[in-house]
Amino acid sequence: MSKKTLSTRPYKGTRDFYPEDYRVHQYMFDVIRTVLYRFGYEEYMAPLLEETDLYRAKSGEEIVNEQTYSFEDRGGRDLTIRPEMTPSLARMVARRSGDYTYPLRWFSIPNLYRYERPQRGRLREHYQVNVDIFGTESKYADIEALDVARSLLTEFGATSEDFEIHINDRRLIHAVYSEVLGLSEEQSYALSKLVDRKDKISTEEFQSQVREIVAQDTAKHLETLLEKDSFEAFVAYLREISSDNQIVEDAIQSFETFLNGVRQVGMSNVIFDFELMRGFDYYTGFVFEVFDTHPDNNRAMFGGGRYDNLLEIFDQPPMGAIGFGMGDVPLWVFLETHGLLPQVEDRIDAYVCVLDTQYLAAAYEYTQMLRSHDFSVVMDYSGRKLSAQLKTADRKNARFALCLGEQEVRNETVTVRTLATGEQETVSFEKAVALLKQV
Amino acid sequence: MSKKTLSTRPYKGTRDFYPEDYRVHQYMFDVIRTVLYRFGYEEYMAPLLEETDLYRAKSGEEIVNEQTYSFEDRGGRDLTIRPEMTPSLARMVARRSGDYTYPLRWFSIPNLYRYERPQRGRLREHYQVNVDIFGTESKYADIEALDVARSLLTEFGATSEDFEIHINDRRLIHAVYSEVLGLSEEQSYALSKLVDRKDKISTEEFQSQVREIVAQDTAKHLETLLEKDSFEAFVAYLREISSDNQIVEDAIQSFETFLNGVRQVGMSNVIFDFELMRGFDYYTGFVFEVFDTHPDNNRAMFGGGRYDNLLEIFDQPPMGAIGFGMGDVPLWVFLETHGLLPQVEDRIDAYVCVLDTQYLAAAYEYTQMLRSHDFSVVMDYSGRKLSAQLKTADRKNARFALCLGEQEVRNETVTVRTLATGEQETVSFEKAVALLKQV
Repeated sequence: MSKKTLSTRPYKGTRDFYPEDYRVHQYMFDVIRTVLYRFGYEEYMAPLLEETDLYRAKSGEEIVNEQTYSFEDRGGRDLTIRPEMTPSLARMVARRSGDYTYPLRWFSIPNLYRYERPQRGRLREHYQVNVDIFGTESKYADIEALDVARSLLTEFGATSEDFEIHINDRRLIHAVYSEVLGLSEEQSYALSKLVDRKDKISTEEFQSQVREIVAQDTAKHLETLLEKDSFEAFVAYLREISSDNQIVEDAIQSFETFLNGVRQVGMSNVIFDFELMRGFDYYTGFVFEVFDTHPDNNRAMFGGGRYDNLLEIFDQPPMGAIGFGMGDVPLWVFLETHGLLPQVEDRIDAYVCVLDTQYLAAAYEYTQMLRSHDFSVVMDYSGRKLSAQLKTADRKNARFALCLGEQEVRNETVTVRTLATGEQETVSFEKAVALLKQV
Repeated sequence: MSKKTLSTRPYKGTRDFYPEDYRVHQYMFDVIRTVLYRFGYEEYMAPLLEETDLYRAKSGEEIVNEQTYSFEDRGGRDLTIRPEMTPSLARMVARRSGDYTYPLRWFSIPNLYRYERPQRGRLREHYQVNVDIFGTESKYADIEALDVARSLLTEFGATSEDFEIHINDRRLIHAVYSEVLGLSEEQSYALSKLVDRKDKISTEEFQSQVREIVAQDTAKHLETLLEKDSFEAFVAYLREISSDNQIVEDAIQSFETFLNGVRQVGMSNVIFDFELMRGFDYYTGFVFEVFDTHPDNNRAMFGGGRYDNLLEIFDQPPMGAIGFGMGDVPLWVFLETHGLLPQVEDRIDAYVCVLDTQYLAAAYEYTQMLRSHDFSVVMDYSGRKLSAQLKTADRKNARFALCLGEQEVRNETVTVRTLATGEQETVSFEKAVALLKQV
């Protein structure tokens, strides 16, 4: 290998976070943590590498082979860099399922790796906020999950006009597909995949593909149900065609209770959407997806739902669980699009300018004293001209420049310059500390 | 694959961080960030995966082959999970070297992967605080690095008796080995490796191995120098045997200035240690290592030094740089050993108990109101007996249990129970908020 070819660019599909980027990222995660603590969620973390079997058990061979970073370690173990957090979470819960008081409210903000062709919003390395509740069947836990998702956005200053939360329910889908339309499991599966892609193909294409799976009148029923623009209208038509089926009635009533609960707690932008399928096959109850309503970015940002059977892969009994994962990239795009990302600046309290290198030792002690008062302080070791040091102070975004020269050292004073105004005064050390504390 | 075999244990040599573990970890990193912000350091992050060439260029083929997690991606690129952060940092600085005002003070707390036989303090995945200054030749930057290292420990409550900072200097080593003892580069290298292992072998073995590399009288000189227990005694003997060599004098004086600076700024536990070599071959100036002085854990915890040539691998000119990396495991062991790890508890402000499920909607609204005051609140959806709900409140470490039953809902009141004392009173919502705010 020639040294000349060594690239300074990060690996394709990954990002360097320079301090100015990292600050924005940290700001986003700080806001998220604030919300999650308020809802009583606790943070956890899992190792980056898991044995590949964990993902095979959950997602099947196909996803493991095509989309993951998998390899053998030097001892012949088949490992995968986590492409998602849920399997690790399930493993952790299964490992200590007897140790905790339920429900658990846990979250994590891991980095994840997927082998994708990099494109807008799809990177090979991204971060994802994972929020999960384990061990409750309550509808209020479902409502809470929506409330958390909503609050994650409103805490940044988003209003309920800036996004919509679409909801649907696996049990309702099952009741319609299996009980009312009389579809086989294979037909249901094929149809759910098709409905999931509905917005990506033309109406004609959709209709023709539906008819490849089911008969003409069944297709008509489905299309009519999909066209209904409220849960009430949907239910009215469903009851018309379902002739008093108890499974259907139960699914309707269960969802109605949930929807009423959602409305009761003030979530005005939650919308019933019978098209909503979600990519994963493990959801067992309600599912949701949050959409950006901005015309420039009108698309799904993140989602989740209820999945009660995840611990199955560890031979453990079902446990009521709800979860969602929000990627950092869609969130960042949303905040950017709506002008909700503030200028996140790094500030230091003081930049200590030293007029001659012979005063460096004295200035260093003075700097230490300031730090003992918990100020963030950077000292200039260069011995350059004062004007050059002040310029650096400015670039480092210091609130004050504290200058030490012959006079100051002799008199045990310091010249305090407010960088925003250029005002300055020469004061005692104690006075300087008091000035810094004022702001 | 049979589902039965799916293990709930994390991959060998890695750790699950359950919330109670994560809290301790976060506490450690919070303290560290507090110190680093105070010194004006800014946080950055790099991707987890880098092209393997980056590590080959810095550390050589051997380390890449034996100790790293390396593999090919699906496009045939040779990748490595970062075993250390410095190469990524160097890449990032090289990529934008013209964009910044120097010196840069950057830090990061990445997780790193090394393929090791897991043992106490050596894991396959660990976290490491990386602290670096780029773009200064100043001795005060060297002093600052020691000051930061010291402060990272004292901020946890450690005193200067709890640890020692050993220092040495590559230029001094070079002057002695090459100028005074007249060793070839090969001899110097072999000897430095041997001195690095001195504490792990017997005195006899050491002496015999020294004599395999150099002649008897040279060996004697080296051993005498290594025995000196102060810099002053070391220098006195060195001057005796070096006959006015200017390179030696320069190295002595340069180190003396540094040592005096260190003492001047109040670091009493810094010790000259001519045995200190450090594992890496890229240090060019002073090196240091922090030792735990506790009899139960008397060993090196972390270290670093000056390395001015790291950007060489990107064909960029040398840039004065200093850095060190502190692993989370040695730090944790140190804090544990000295009793400096506090009980880090998760607290929530209120646990809302609901006496009958018919009041869940009202209680949820009340819970939302409390959260709007920025309290962390968990609500019980279970409808269990009050005593069971209070037990959970206790386990969740809530400060207050807020109970809502028929009477409370009717009168728009709430019963506030202080969990530590068992005292309770029934008050208006406003009064409840005021009570929560008091503590």
